Amino acid sequence: MKFSCNQSKLSKSLNIISKAISTRTTMPILKGILLEVEDGMLTLTASDLDISVIRKMKVDSSENGKIVVNAKIFTDIIRKLPSADIEFVVDDSNKMEIKCLNTDFEIICISPDEFPSIYRENFDDAISFHKETFKELIRRTQFAAHPDETRGIISGILIEMNKEYLKMVAIDGYRMAINKAVTNIDSEQKFVISARIMGELSKIINDSQDESDIIKIKKNGKSLAALIGNNEVNLRIIDGEFLQYNEMVPTESSIHVKLNRKSLNEAIDRASIFTIEGQNNLIKLNIKDQNMKISSKSQEGSVVEEVMIEKTGQDIEIGFNAKYLIDILKVIEDDEIMLYFNSPVTPCVVTPIDGDDYLFLVLPVRVK
Amino acid sequence: MKFSCNQSKLSKSLNIISKAISTRTTMPILKGILLEVEDGMLTLTASDLDISVIRKMKVDSSENGKIVVNAKIFTDIIRKLPSADIEFVVDDSNKMEIKCLNTDFEIICISPDEFPSIYRENFDDAISFHKETFKELIRRTQFAAHPDETRGIISGILIEMNKEYLKMVAIDGYRMAINKAVTNIDSEQKFVISARIMGELSKIINDSQDESDIIKIKKNGKSLAALIGNNEVNLRIIDGEFLQYNEMVPTESSIHVKLNRKSLNEAIDRASIFTIEGQNNLIKLNIKDQNMKISSKSQEGSVVEEVMIEKTGQDIEIGFNAKYLIDILKVIEDDEIMLYFNSPVTPCVVTPIDGDDYLFLVLPVRVK
Repeated sequence: MKFSCNQSKLSKSLNIISKAISTRTTMPILKGILLEVEDGMLTLTASDLDISVIRKMKVDSSENGKIVVNAKIFTDIIRKLPSADIEFVVDDSNKMEIKCLNTDFEIICISPDEFPSIYRENFDDAISFHKETFKELIRRTQFAAHPDETRGIISGILIEMNKEYLKMVAIDGYRMAINKAVTNIDSEQKFVISARIMGELSKIINDSQDESDIIKIKKNGKSLAALIGNNEVNLRIIDGEFLQYNEMVPTESSIHVKLNRKSLNEAIDRASIFTIEGQNNLIKLNIKDQNMKISSKSQEGSVVEEVMIEKTGQDIEIGFNAKYLIDILKVIEDDEIMLYFNSPVTPCVVTPIDGDDYLFLVLPVRVK
Repeated sequence: MKFSCNQSKLSKSLNIISKAISTRTTMPILKGILLEVEDGMLTLTASDLDISVIRKMKVDSSENGKIVVNAKIFTDIIRKLPSADIEFVVDDSNKMEIKCLNTDFEIICISPDEFPSIYRENFDDAISFHKETFKELIRRTQFAAHPDETRGIISGILIEMNKEYLKMVAIDGYRMAINKAVTNIDSEQKFVISARIMGELSKIINDSQDESDIIKIKKNGKSLAALIGNNEVNLRIIDGEFLQYNEMVPTESSIHVKLNRKSLNEAIDRASIFTIEGQNNLIKLNIKDQNMKISSKSQEGSVVEEVMIEKTGQDIEIGFNAKYLIDILKVIEDDEIMLYFNSPVTPCVVTPIDGDDYLFLVLPVRVK
């Protein structure tokens, strides 16, 4: 195997491929990147079994071949080389020589035979979305999934699509995020993918900015294949039925509050100085007439914040985990938002003033 | 005590004062900041006994007084408040109310009686240096001191001044840094201050950019007082005699090497990919004719780098801890530098091509 290519192009490829490198794997081969050279095309493959990334790039090649390199060492070397052409030669004993200007590296590689074979999708009949929309939905949903992947379905994001919309939903038991974008596709599908993996996909979308505006996806048995520019990504689908999230959203609310998102965010951020982690980061919302008082208290002191609101319905006092509210307010960009309440023991719902692009739900914390 | 001031000005003051807040102290009072208001002037004081910072700022005051506030909570509150005027009122029970627009904080404060009294210097007959020069000498010296403060004198920086120069010296047992700036002062002094504390002083110089170009210093028994703009800093002097560093510098060298600093730095950085921490991060320098080969080797692979040099004297092969060389090359800005060698078991000396602004020394590592 013999090829040469430009340092900065290869660096970019390794950066994208690295999203599928497992740091915790017990299979040493998965700490590697599969390099395949065939007639002027280098294909890089990495997989942690939950996510696989395959990236193609043009190179100058004079001898085809396959080899697995240690991802950390190989990436470290390429990143530290000057922005010039690099020559690669792999001999029969799996030694790779890497030459660039006055630098001469030799690394011990691994036989490619052990590397897991990754299914390659044909994207001819795939569904296309604008990739920035897809990334934005991930950003606004991901935080509400359970961070522990051993918890199965609640550590995932439900992706639901039909003729009218693409929807992502996450629920961790205390809160829920539903985000939606209008689509016009000829397919109806539902599946759940780990929120962590969706985060990696979001990074790949980000890193391939100049390659394509589109993400193509195609469900295939137990996995979802996605194509973004020169990158083919395979994501494992989580088995099992997602929660009946629609049933958890209150159909009616007696108290409607309209307010400025940024003011609320800053007020809760300050009020959270005196919240206590072991006590649910409790803050109290006291909604009375056209005014919301936000307060918290600890041994060190106390704080009362005041935010102007537009309210219909009765007054209410209700407690929340400050962190959960901040998580939601951080991912919304609207100047004004709606909060809906029914009672101090039923969830609060957050939506835009108009439309249903997003709906967030948070369970209250009992105020002593 | 009653005063009001602008949020951003107070934030800046707290940022500077925070350099003297101890995170590890066993004395709770030292986690606090002393606030003293007297006729329109607020004095903030913090001390971890090794370093004390006193900062003055103008405020609107209507009632004088003193109080100690918890540094973390107070700084957190001020930082999160909007950029507007803040009102402070402390009542007889040591409760402080902090009001800003729609925000109302109450914090429990500590009586100022327990706060250590900090000596206030008179700087009329102090020695003045350009503060950027002073900061630059700290940056180029600090890394060569021993990081463990319990090690006493070798964790310090020797500051030596006389009619001709201001010099800083650090030695950790494996390497040495001597940095010098020309001065014209009427004093001869020598003292040692912890490298960590000198680092904090350097940050204060940085944060008070707009306040003064000058640092005034004055030795006073067991401590050094420094004045930078509105900030008075007190630094504890380490007891004991500093090492006879001049005796450690070889007076003659048989091998003189002139080379490009950046090329050497990048070559060592790449060669260090295969160095092993448990084995002194060993890299080998092979100096032959007008060429230096830098190499390292591990189970994973090997590397050979080549750097062009101008040499007088015989050829030599010598080993070093790559990290120690990189530390030195990082703080030098010159394009070209000199390396001096005598033998594979005697130190390497690094100096500028001309002059004696700096001299670094590194002990070699035995090559097996």
